Amino acid sequence: MALTSDASGVYPIAPTPFLDDGRIDTAAIDRLTDFYLGCGATGITVLGQLGEAPKLEHAESVDVARRMIQRASRLPVIVGVSAPGFAAMRALTRDVMDAGAAGVMIAPPNTLRTDDQIVSYYRQAAQAIGEDVPFVLQDYPLTFSVQMTPGVIRSIVQDNPSCVMLKHEDWPGLEKISTLRAWEREGAMRHIAILTGNNGLFLDYEMERGADGANTGYAFPDMLVDLVRLSRAGQREEAHDLFDAHLPLLRYEQQPGIGLTVRKYLLYRRGLLGSPTLRQPFAPLTAATKAEVEHLLGRLARHDTRAQL
Amino acid sequence: MALTSDASGVYPIAPTPFLDDGRIDTAAIDRLTDFYLGCGATGITVLGQLGEAPKLEHAESVDVARRMIQRASRLPVIVGVSAPGFAAMRALTRDVMDAGAAGVMIAPPNTLRTDDQIVSYYRQAAQAIGEDVPFVLQDYPLTFSVQMTPGVIRSIVQDNPSCVMLKHEDWPGLEKISTLRAWEREGAMRHIAILTGNNGLFLDYEMERGADGANTGYAFPDMLVDLVRLSRAGQREEAHDLFDAHLPLLRYEQQPGIGLTVRKYLLYRRGLLGSPTLRQPFAPLTAATKAEVEHLLGRLARHDTRAQL
Amino acid sequence: MALTSDASGVYPIAPTPFLDDGRIDTAAIDRLTDFYLGCGATGITVLGQLGEAPKLEHAESVDVARRMIQRASRLPVIVGVSAPGFAAMRALTRDVMDAGAAGVMIAPPNTLRTDDQIVSYYRQAAQAIGEDVPFVLQDYPLTFSVQMTPGVIRSIVQDNPSCVMLKHEDWPGLEKISTLRAWEREGAMRHIAILTGNNGLFLDYEMERGADGANTGYAFPDMLVDLVRLSRAGQREEAHDLFDAHLPLLRYEQQPGIGLTVRKYLLYRRGLLGSPTLRQPFAPLTAATKAEVEHLLGRLARHDTRAQL
Amino acid sequence: MALTSDASGVYPIAPTPFLDDGRIDTAAIDRLTDFYLGCGATGITVLGQLGEAPKLEHAESVDVARRMIQRASRLPVIVGVSAPGFAAMRALTRDVMDAGAAGVMIAPPNTLRTDDQIVSYYRQAAQAIGEDVPFVLQDYPLTFSVQMTPGVIRSIVQDNPSCVMLKHEDWPGLEKISTLRAWEREGAMRHIAILTGNNGLFLDYEMERGADGANTGYAFPDMLVDLVRLSRAGQREEAHDLFDAHLPLLRYEQQPGIGLTVRKYLLYRRGLLGSPTLRQPFAPLTAATKAEVEHLLGRLARHDTRAQL
Repeated sequence: MALTSDASGVYPIAPTPFLDDGRIDTAAIDRLTDFYLGCGATGITVLGQLGEAPKLEHAESVDVARRMIQRASRLPVIVGVSAPGFAAMRALTRDVMDAGAAGVMIAPPNTLRTDDQIVSYYRQAAQAIGEDVPFVLQDYPLTFSVQMTPGVIRSIVQDNPSCVMLKHEDWPGLEKISTLRAWEREGAMRHIAILTGNNGLFLDYEMERGADGANTGYAFPDMLVDLVRLSRAGQREEAHDLFDAHLPLLRYEQQPGIGLTVRKYLLYRRGLLGSPTLRQPFAPLTAATKAEVEHLLGRLARHDTRAQL
Repeated sequence: MALTSDASGVYPIAPTPFLDDGRIDTAAIDRLTDFYLGCGATGITVLGQLGEAPKLEHAESVDVARRMIQRASRLPVIVGVSAPGFAAMRALTRDVMDAGAAGVMIAPPNTLRTDDQIVSYYRQAAQAIGEDVPFVLQDYPLTFSVQMTPGVIRSIVQDNPSCVMLKHEDWPGLEKISTLRAWEREGAMRHIAILTGNNGLFLDYEMERGADGANTGYAFPDMLVDLVRLSRAGQREEAHDLFDAHLPLLRYEQQPGIGLTVRKYLLYRRGLLGSPTLRQPFAPLTAATKAEVEHLLGRLARHDTRAQL
Repeated sequence: MALTSDASGVYPIAPTPFLDDGRIDTAAIDRLTDFYLGCGATGITVLGQLGEAPKLEHAESVDVARRMIQRASRLPVIVGVSAPGFAAMRALTRDVMDAGAAGVMIAPPNTLRTDDQIVSYYRQAAQAIGEDVPFVLQDYPLTFSVQMTPGVIRSIVQDNPSCVMLKHEDWPGLEKISTLRAWEREGAMRHIAILTGNNGLFLDYEMERGADGANTGYAFPDMLVDLVRLSRAGQREEAHDLFDAHLPLLRYEQQPGIGLTVRKYLLYRRGLLGSPTLRQPFAPLTAATKAEVEHLLGRLARHDTRAQL
Repeated sequence: MALTSDASGVYPIAPTPFLDDGRIDTAAIDRLTDFYLGCGATGITVLGQLGEAPKLEHAESVDVARRMIQRASRLPVIVGVSAPGFAAMRALTRDVMDAGAAGVMIAPPNTLRTDDQIVSYYRQAAQAIGEDVPFVLQDYPLTFSVQMTPGVIRSIVQDNPSCVMLKHEDWPGLEKISTLRAWEREGAMRHIAILTGNNGLFLDYEMERGADGANTGYAFPDMLVDLVRLSRAGQREEAHDLFDAHLPLLRYEQQPGIGLTVRKYLLYRRGLLGSPTLRQPFAPLTAATKAEVEHLLGRLARHDTRAQL
């Protein structure tokens, strides 16, 4: 089940669940996967930017991916394989593709600057992992400090048939979607799937600009599924009403650094994780932060019963 | 009327209004200033990061500041004087303080890295502008790429009696406010005013953490005034209700790069600017962006009549 | 006397001389200028990256440039006008061109990242200063953090007829010169002057790759003049012998941060500056550094009598 | 044989030798190691910044380190274990320490900015690898974009008894050595070994400021051994004469990006590598570059017979 440029819907970014002692919580992997399956996700991404991948040894990474792939059965699973060198990227790709992954996701190293450097990097990466492995191009300048113009994305897409999807998280990014889609319509660029990240902070309008769905880790992926469905069904104001109700919490969860800790706490409160813990090193939530998250949940619950915990 | 550490309330960041031909729109300066006065602002900041200061020649900057200072009469006006060198910073400070400014705002140059470099820079800046000139420390790592720990802020405050206010726009930043306020309570740091920026994206909780108000340029400063009032009056849920209604638009206006263009368009639609234009070079809003802003306004108008334009 | 793409030889980067009390030392400006004239320089650049330009107010900058322009009479003088905004750049350009400057030099702001951003910036800058003003493109990634590929430089040259010279200080940079010169030979790029900076650290081979000369501030510009002459005359080993004798000192003077302080000390020791001081803020040389400079001078004096001070 | 703060002399940074087809050249590892032993090196560092570590899979890295450790027998071998996450760092440390390494070297990730972030990172890293594993702190801001003040280095040294050596490659860096040594003399800091990198570009004066030797990969480590010996023996001018003769080539080999390719070519010309190749991806030397290297070798050979190849 290889990832293709027809991907659409919601691919949640799965966190890596840990037990309080730092070991991987395999039961929680199963529970999360079942939840994604049940709520209408169309795929899953694991070991992404907020999957604590750098805290896992190689064998652990392969184990986490394999378990999720097997449990997800009919859903395609994308595995993050970004690494500072092509050797580690190739090794992880080989092992997870052997385990049944649908494709991999590659973020740029933050040392890339010129257009040529970025385009060359993805050419080399595609060759390193094997040109038969579908890959997702991750465009997240806020975190990676690499700025890709629409023209650079087009070059990468044209150079590499195995590039089938863009994880779009530029900021601002709405015009970028419009530009890429216009090029597709004009025949100036091959079609690729565009799923958006950035914790969904602009998902309302991203859908209207031509995105195929969401590829982000917000603790209410079931809301993302509803939003994508409403938006595609043309129920514009209903989509915005749902989005707006969640926006205060989306925004809170989107904070750099502490965002993942908030997200895991929320997933724990929803019963999807057995523990809100991150693997060391991490800073736990302060009491004030926890109280704010509870306050946000309480306010959200007035609009969305899923927040009644 | 010198700025002091007792500053509180809402200090809108005033844009610089231009006519369609690029000249400064003095009538709009007056209209904006009158609006700030009328809606309950407690001060004004001009020539800030989103005031297009680098597009003004020195004499123009002084003229804009002087006009606003005179019109604002009873309100303190802070002038942004950030510059790559102390000579330009000192020259502008001298001229605007002569014109009656209450103080100046200084952002760090983006080449500063270590704690010592940051602390030294502000020591030198304070000496350059004159130690009798009250100044605002601007902490905006997203834009300036300079990361100030709470300890660095404390050092700057302790080193420089003329540092009376923090324009807080770190992200995440809630814990930073709590840390600084705790130090003040413990006697470990002199009290300063903390007004928050970042387009108010976390103003709801920033107030609860101990901020004294807002110092940002959102196109509805009258909403910011209400929010600060409600929050201080302990009407917590009312404050959040108002905030949440505006959040979709706040978020949209907060986009890097195009944010100021959106803001000026909104102020133009409200009749406060005579033209939505920026001075060259700038990219005008696309039709899609304009339609999204109108859509957001329409949705906001259901909750806040001020958005019925 | 407008700067053209035929520029060649040595254009020293002139420091701004100060008296011990921080005022500008006009006598030293004259002495320096006379020295440049006498030693065979073919032009002068003033208010460059190491000319302490940010420490000068606008009027001071114009005064320094005017005095040097008048004294240099038959030599073209280039003035650095880099600024964070086009308003200040335009104002300084206007005033120094009125005073008789041959052209201006523009460095990129360190926020530029993509190829398009860099090319657009120079298009806007050329329009801002006036398309009749010859300008030098400064390519110094180590200091400005902006990486220009040869293709970007070509785009800037093709877009802007007023771009007549490249101040080349990329590192590594030898292949860049070869690429640009090859494009010129193939008719793929208009000819421009290439003078190299970077304190001359690769001037020996830069000349052999096609550079037209040096545009740097080493305290022995008379050596640079000899080196350029020897290299052009085909006296290759003599050129390298001279270069190698100076390399230990060139390297020492090229250190970031303290380099200008070392350079001014050397010019002071040569009697060209009346004081080695920089304008505040700056860190003076330590005793150990001063002793090392003297040691280097002593060793150099065995090969080059100009170092016998 | 654990690395201690008494380390001194020359620890060459060993390149990883490859065959033309990209496989590791084990015979060349042996030849290199024997050469280091024979020329007076006092230790070896492998898999450092210029050891192409990111191009090796984990098992390859361990194999390379083990082979060199065994062959070096009586010399301590330091292994570079820098990684974006502590999991990979811990795994490699465990395996190479088991194989007999004397210690490991850790460079900071280029996302660190504030003093606290840097100090915390090394505390966490020391805990991750085990506090019984001696480690080298690598301070190379030019490459890693992390600026460590002397105070930050002292904090790391004081926090972590297992930090026994500083690989010093700041630029400028002479005053940093003097500051740290002064603190040691005053009892304000525990003694650590300081070996300098940066291709030895300031090794002449670094020795005089208090460095214990060199830890860099210049293709003539035998020259570095002589220089350290002469400097320690007080034969100052002889040390400088030797250094100055090599400086033109040192400088050429020190170029970012192509430096390692030049270095491997030189080691190949000396018969120490069987092939000058790097593992893919890399850009081979141009004909012009190769000719310049040969020219530099020819000129050096007039002063140092080791360059007669």
